[in-house]
Amino acid sequence: MSASPVLPSFDPESPVFRAHEGGKLGVHATQRLADRSDLSLLYTPGVAEVSLAVAADPSLASRYTARGNTVAVVSDGTAVLGLGDIGPLGALPVMEGKAVLFKHFGGVDAVPVVMETGTVDEIVEAVARIAPSYGGINLEDISAPRCFEIEQRLVERLDIPVFHDDQHGTAVVVLAGLHNAVTVLGRRLEALRVVVAGAGAAGVAVTRLLQRAGVRDVVVCDSRGVVSTGRADLPGHKRQLAMSTNPRGITGSLGDALVGADCYIGVSGGVVPEEQVASMAPDGIVFALANPTPEVHPDVAHRHAAVVATGRSDFPNQINNVLAFPGIFRGALDAGATRITEAMKLAAARAIADVVTEPAADRVVPSVFDPGVAEAVAGAVRALAPTGPRRTGGAAAG
Amino acid sequence: MSASPVLPSFDPESPVFRAHEGGKLGVHATQRLADRSDLSLLYTPGVAEVSLAVAADPSLASRYTARGNTVAVVSDGTAVLGLGDIGPLGALPVMEGKAVLFKHFGGVDAVPVVMETGTVDEIVEAVARIAPSYGGINLEDISAPRCFEIEQRLVERLDIPVFHDDQHGTAVVVLAGLHNAVTVLGRRLEALRVVVAGAGAAGVAVTRLLQRAGVRDVVVCDSRGVVSTGRADLPGHKRQLAMSTNPRGITGSLGDALVGADCYIGVSGGVVPEEQVASMAPDGIVFALANPTPEVHPDVAHRHAAVVATGRSDFPNQINNVLAFPGIFRGALDAGATRITEAMKLAAARAIADVVTEPAADRVVPSVFDPGVAEAVAGAVRALAPTGPRRTGGAAAG
Repeated sequence: MSASPVLPSFDPESPVFRAHEGGKLGVHATQRLADRSDLSLLYTPGVAEVSLAVAADPSLASRYTARGNTVAVVSDGTAVLGLGDIGPLGALPVMEGKAVLFKHFGGVDAVPVVMETGTVDEIVEAVARIAPSYGGINLEDISAPRCFEIEQRLVERLDIPVFHDDQHGTAVVVLAGLHNAVTVLGRRLEALRVVVAGAGAAGVAVTRLLQRAGVRDVVVCDSRGVVSTGRADLPGHKRQLAMSTNPRGITGSLGDALVGADCYIGVSGGVVPEEQVASMAPDGIVFALANPTPEVHPDVAHRHAAVVATGRSDFPNQINNVLAFPGIFRGALDAGATRITEAMKLAAARAIADVVTEPAADRVVPSVFDPGVAEAVAGAVRALAPTGPRRTGGAAAG
Repeated sequence: MSASPVLPSFDPESPVFRAHEGGKLGVHATQRLADRSDLSLLYTPGVAEVSLAVAADPSLASRYTARGNTVAVVSDGTAVLGLGDIGPLGALPVMEGKAVLFKHFGGVDAVPVVMETGTVDEIVEAVARIAPSYGGINLEDISAPRCFEIEQRLVERLDIPVFHDDQHGTAVVVLAGLHNAVTVLGRRLEALRVVVAGAGAAGVAVTRLLQRAGVRDVVVCDSRGVVSTGRADLPGHKRQLAMSTNPRGITGSLGDALVGADCYIGVSGGVVPEEQVASMAPDGIVFALANPTPEVHPDVAHRHAAVVATGRSDFPNQINNVLAFPGIFRGALDAGATRITEAMKLAAARAIADVVTEPAADRVVPSVFDPGVAEAVAGAVRALAPTGPRRTGGAAAG
């Protein structure tokens, strides 16, 4: 963080700062409060009856409080957008924006909860303690590898959905795009050689979800090259990746991995040289998702690949999490789901893909403002939602 | 808590349950989101500029996020209304109601944060960790004596206002009523003999604020009688009370304390026998604030006292915290206050009293829906708000 009090880019007259003046969220009453009679219903003495009923039967909370439609957007500001560790206050405008998207696209009442960072234990304890306030927890912009353990422990501990959007939202939309890409190309997921560049939150989740969807040959690369069992420098989550990916046991650099690959999925930043893109198999798929600068510029990618997607709104095929998270939480909340399972994520990806009635190379995902995306996702998720008592034991979201 | 799934009083068709259907709060965007251009301002990529600016200069957070108008209504549900420890879910309808009142009367965006209960350390840690999300913290319905230490430690640790309404909101409105009561009676606070029945959150705070306002002779009683230095059964906060009150060194029961007293303030529940009320000095003041059953019924009180107030809306002189907290937070937020000082509380009480242009025995406080109360309180509070860096060291709210 800069020590200067105001960055050079701070211009209160610019459109972006004007759009943030006063913040982006407000709270309102959904019930009438006009006179003493209303007051005695909404607050004392009337509310006591409702409180006693909810205390006696906690399942009534979703009916008689806003909890059932309320999601906390939780971040400690350690991995915000491409900006890195900018702290909870710096993260707050992003979390408010996320809450605006939750409401606009999913009708979900989301509230930002930005927190001082700390150990995994401390973050888990804080989130678990305040969890009774919410019907779901959306984790956001928490640095890897902390985000994996934080999410896993909260999933195990809480009986409401806990969803780290940087992981699973990205993975769901990538899979949606890939569904339509293989349709357009007349291929099958099972037969693809996929290279995932990036072994952080998004890379790990994309890899796992693609495998669940049937992709057999995924090679993951980090900044040092292929994540393989032979490497001695891997932290725990990458060791696990190495064991469950890379079936041909290749080693070397990203460039080595890309030779003959059918699909590149970049969630890493950096730049892939054109000759490496050119070394991919014919009819390739390039999803270069770094923002604002894709790892492969679409103009370059199109010279060598058949389907190209980015994270940007000014090119076709924008892989944007907002296609997923509003509908996923909408469906989960409507069902009173106790968690977001892998089956729900797979169904969400399929639903997003199916919103595109005529997939084409430049239309493998819907546009963000296409009508019906969140509804379709919500419907698919709702149908699969588990609502029973939470699992015991130590399995990850399942 | 009952083990039965639904209490007998649960009637979904009753007005109170109908008024709670779906909860009482919603979240909305305050900025336009209609197209891609709006999206790129409110979220990526535009929001990155705002996040960087706020990270570099945290004071910008109050301008470019909703934080500056957002208050957390925090409770662990251990002392809810007169219901006791009903847990966080049971408390949630009350906290939503409180948030509705914050918005309606003070224009404050309040969000409920109900938490699993725990030790003082655990509650303090959780609140402090999420504090960057908010411009102020309203503590609510946390059991005594935990509430005292929780509030004190949060005040010391955070640079935003922390206010336990059960203590200070009650104290402010009691003082407001007492200001006008002595005006009506042609007396002075300094000359009153006051008996405070109840040594919990409200009793302690009322006692301290009355002393700050000039009352010299306060005797506090708990369920065992006068809180006096001779008692061996007193926990820490009551020992402190014993040392700073009871200047005539009396001992015995509440009945003993009331003989010749000018003012009874009940924040305890229970019943005061009529003969004890009759033993008070002439032209007495009876504030019997237990809800829904005042310690002295107003009909009984009027036989012996000149000014009678209760916590109920169906009698004159309702001592209701809603006269205080919306304006206090409104003023504190507008000023960017770092805490709520004793001076601000005294000014709030004076402002509430002064809204009553012609005080009378049956009108010592404004009605809840009288216009201008919150504005008057906010103005008084704003004028005195400290905005400097937070104090170091261990003093309580100062």
